Amino acid sequence: AMGRAMGLAGLLLGLVLVPAVLVSTSLRPGAPRGEAEPAPADWELVAGAVPEDSLWPLPQWLRTSPRQLRLAPGRFQLVHSAGSSAGSGCAPLQDAFRRYYEYMFGHSRRRRWGRRPLAARAELSELSELQVVIEAPETGCDSYPHLGSSEAYHLTVTEPVAILKAYEVWGALRGLETFSQLVHEDDYGSFLVNESEINDFPRFAHRGILLDTSRHYLPMKTILTNLDAMAFNKFNVLHWHIVDDQSFPYQSIYFPELSDKGAYSSNLIYSPADVRLVIEYARLRGIRVVPEFDTPGHTQSWGKGQKGLLTPCYNKGQPTGSFGPVNPIWNTTYDFMTKFFKEISSVFPDAYIHLGGDEVDFSCWKSNPEVTEFMKKQGFDTDYAKLESYYIQNILDIVSSYNKGQLVWQEVFDHKAQLKLDTVVEVWMANNYANELSSVTGAGFSAVLAAPWYLDYISYGQDWKKYYRVEPLNFLGSEEQKKLVIGGEACLWGEFVDATNLTPRLWPRASAVGERLWSSRNVTNLEDAYERLTSHRCRML
Amino acid sequence: AMGRAMGLAGLLLGLVLVPAVLVSTSLRPGAPRGEAEPAPADWELVAGAVPEDSLWPLPQWLRTSPRQLRLAPGRFQLVHSAGSSAGSGCAPLQDAFRRYYEYMFGHSRRRRWGRRPLAARAELSELSELQVVIEAPETGCDSYPHLGSSEAYHLTVTEPVAILKAYEVWGALRGLETFSQLVHEDDYGSFLVNESEINDFPRFAHRGILLDTSRHYLPMKTILTNLDAMAFNKFNVLHWHIVDDQSFPYQSIYFPELSDKGAYSSNLIYSPADVRLVIEYARLRGIRVVPEFDTPGHTQSWGKGQKGLLTPCYNKGQPTGSFGPVNPIWNTTYDFMTKFFKEISSVFPDAYIHLGGDEVDFSCWKSNPEVTEFMKKQGFDTDYAKLESYYIQNILDIVSSYNKGQLVWQEVFDHKAQLKLDTVVEVWMANNYANELSSVTGAGFSAVLAAPWYLDYISYGQDWKKYYRVEPLNFLGSEEQKKLVIGGEACLWGEFVDATNLTPRLWPRASAVGERLWSSRNVTNLEDAYERLTSHRCRML
Repeated sequence: AMGRAMGLAGLLLGLVLVPAVLVSTSLRPGAPRGEAEPAPADWELVAGAVPEDSLWPLPQWLRTSPRQLRLAPGRFQLVHSAGSSAGSGCAPLQDAFRRYYEYMFGHSRRRRWGRRPLAARAELSELSELQVVIEAPETGCDSYPHLGSSEAYHLTVTEPVAILKAYEVWGALRGLETFSQLVHEDDYGSFLVNESEINDFPRFAHRGILLDTSRHYLPMKTILTNLDAMAFNKFNVLHWHIVDDQSFPYQSIYFPELSDKGAYSSNLIYSPADVRLVIEYARLRGIRVVPEFDTPGHTQSWGKGQKGLLTPCYNKGQPTGSFGPVNPIWNTTYDFMTKFFKEISSVFPDAYIHLGGDEVDFSCWKSNPEVTEFMKKQGFDTDYAKLESYYIQNILDIVSSYNKGQLVWQEVFDHKAQLKLDTVVEVWMANNYANELSSVTGAGFSAVLAAPWYLDYISYGQDWKKYYRVEPLNFLGSEEQKKLVIGGEACLWGEFVDATNLTPRLWPRASAVGERLWSSRNVTNLEDAYERLTSHRCRML
Repeated sequence: AMGRAMGLAGLLLGLVLVPAVLVSTSLRPGAPRGEAEPAPADWELVAGAVPEDSLWPLPQWLRTSPRQLRLAPGRFQLVHSAGSSAGSGCAPLQDAFRRYYEYMFGHSRRRRWGRRPLAARAELSELSELQVVIEAPETGCDSYPHLGSSEAYHLTVTEPVAILKAYEVWGALRGLETFSQLVHEDDYGSFLVNESEINDFPRFAHRGILLDTSRHYLPMKTILTNLDAMAFNKFNVLHWHIVDDQSFPYQSIYFPELSDKGAYSSNLIYSPADVRLVIEYARLRGIRVVPEFDTPGHTQSWGKGQKGLLTPCYNKGQPTGSFGPVNPIWNTTYDFMTKFFKEISSVFPDAYIHLGGDEVDFSCWKSNPEVTEFMKKQGFDTDYAKLESYYIQNILDIVSSYNKGQLVWQEVFDHKAQLKLDTVVEVWMANNYANELSSVTGAGFSAVLAAPWYLDYISYGQDWKKYYRVEPLNFLGSEEQKKLVIGGEACLWGEFVDATNLTPRLWPRASAVGERLWSSRNVTNLEDAYERLTSHRCRML
């Protein structure tokens, strides 16, 4: 299916075929795709060259003209516009200029530059530059993207220059991706772009990919490659589920024993330099890195390097030698967490930390006589969800004191921990997640939806359609509630994923989630998506 | 799970711990694995070094001793024994010596050779050579492996030399793989092997992997890498499903238009040189290449480069412009097939060609008035299975005239084509395949089982266990019938497979099939298999 010829189908699906500049093709989202007029004789020139049939995710608003411009790789430039508040000192833009130039003209294509274009091509006008204008005085060049960052951009491609306007650099990065998707190479090695105008912005502010580096260690290269793929799909959050029961690859500065003893091996870790590299590589692509340090459950690996942290389990009044979740009743636990999260808050610049809180198994707590006594003293009776909430609230307070916002898995909300109103609840349980979204937003909390997008659950065939069909706001609730859904995440848990299969397993399946979270709500046509996704996959490869 | 420490678990699972030379550990297959004696104090030396816990597929008979020998990469040699009928002119062995030396000592390990071994290691005796003896006067060095080839070998590893005896080179290749699996590196970079004796042979003669290069083109590199993986798992047949409806990448010498017009593109083809390389690369690993040219269905791509070959479909008495299966009523069809299969018979040296014959859709034949008339004339009434059989029997006769044996998919048998008794029927339909095995072998035909091993059907979790649990002879039939099951195949159809995901999708899942087809029937312990497979996967990586 990869080898399919593209484009002609697109011609027949709704473009107005008048060869004039910027004749509107009508707004694409929601516009019915009817039968086209018969193509005029000169149509061969642009067959296979309909740009919007390879855009992914589809922009909010676009129009394109059949009129094409040529790009000469040796002359074409990506430049800062004179009126821009960003200049050559702006690292994210400088890096993106180099990167997108390479995507458009680099690799195997370079060989072909020697060839003379066909005469027909030579008659086309040339696009000489893409000028980038950053409009905000605070460009973002030297800071990190955050939940409130602007990713909107406006792109016009007309002779002789294309202009990309964005409020902040983050929008410019999205626009550069789109521009690179518009540029295509014809069969003769000419680089072409159709005159176009695009006005674009994300539907949801939080568009995440969860990677799990505990079940299997992921080499740095795999993580960085995934950040590239995320940028191709306009994702903006790497949810780094960095540690879990199975291993603790995060090398802590204060507590190096955690990875010394809890990692699979001494070289399967993320050093402080590795973490900095991931964060900076992500920043240059407009991607936030939200680390998850999941407690009190999912912490077996923590216990190896931090004695006394986990709850000793008992059987018939005797310690079994096994350990359960983090011990919520000792002050030493909170002393450790205070210091640990101080480090995490400083190492990870993002305004949010994910604190986990999912799947806490109460059986070990129930077995432990000290815990039982503590429960009595606190008046928790036998409601261990209260103990869990007691623990979580302590952790939330600690992390709040470092001025960090918090994400938590849905159980923390379900078990009625008293959450600060700016806590973000991540909904992951597949069963009846619409109802959970109603509850979470009904209580006034922001929500991130992950439940329908557990991409580690593989199945035969084109399951991307299942992910694509999800409508995140399809739940009972007021307009105010709907606004509290700030986005979603595609999760690739690591039980059966490592460097050998991560990329082909995640992409392009996650692209379906990417478009759902970026594009307009009414972009739902599966056949259209299939055509564009096929083309997008080729480009990603 | 990849990072798991291996070995100690193995120590606790049934080895006799007396440190003497070749003290029997009892035959492994079927031997109950009880609790072991407490380890003597010197056990640290061999912890993590129990060779049989990483062997895959498990040999038919083995015993190992805790006594270890060292190998010095700078001195150790793989050599022809003085008494061998093969010598330095034997390409498969020479190539395998180089290859297995590299597997054992090569890659990242080379760096470590500078290190001095620990004193404890220095006390171990050295294994200086592996001597290979080929016993048959016809070694196989200059021929191709075939269904009747001997793959048996006998391996003894004792100070000062290891001896590998095999009747033909094909057995020696299997023994070299096993020897390389016995050699392991300890934590200090020393190469060690336990004194051992292994007597081994395959349970089934036909152990295949089906690759589909039509739904997606597979680059040469992917095919060759798969041949390496097949050798690691003692597979011996590449079933090359080379063309199908979607594309015709085989570049024919007589009919170059078939790929000129039927391939996805002019560079997504297998040239005669490519095909020769696949065949020779496979031969050097003891692997047969059985090409499949599936007709009369699955042939849409043939029609592009060979006008008049396919049946024109009709609607209301008019040709629709679409085509169905190969046209079985015209002499030109058989003229073409005679010439085509003459080429195929000469290009592919294997004694068998797979002729397909599956999933023939009768609707186009039914629509065609010429076909209807032909049916009447032949007295087929409206039984299109008879027309199918008429076609297939013509093809079988053509191919027989070139002295080639034939494999066919089960429908050819089901639809009662008159088959020569040496035809091999491949059973692929998942529904009630045991019954089909009874019928096929009951009629006196050989069978290859593929039905339970369609590895393109993916699902979440450890589905290798499902493939591993299959017992091919679990059907009603006499001993004679059971003997007619000559083997099986793991099939990776290409609808959702290409170079980006083939290797991690096929391996190590196909390894489960590899052990089922090679090892003794009673090798069925899943926990034991899990441990060995984990280790084997690491080694393959």
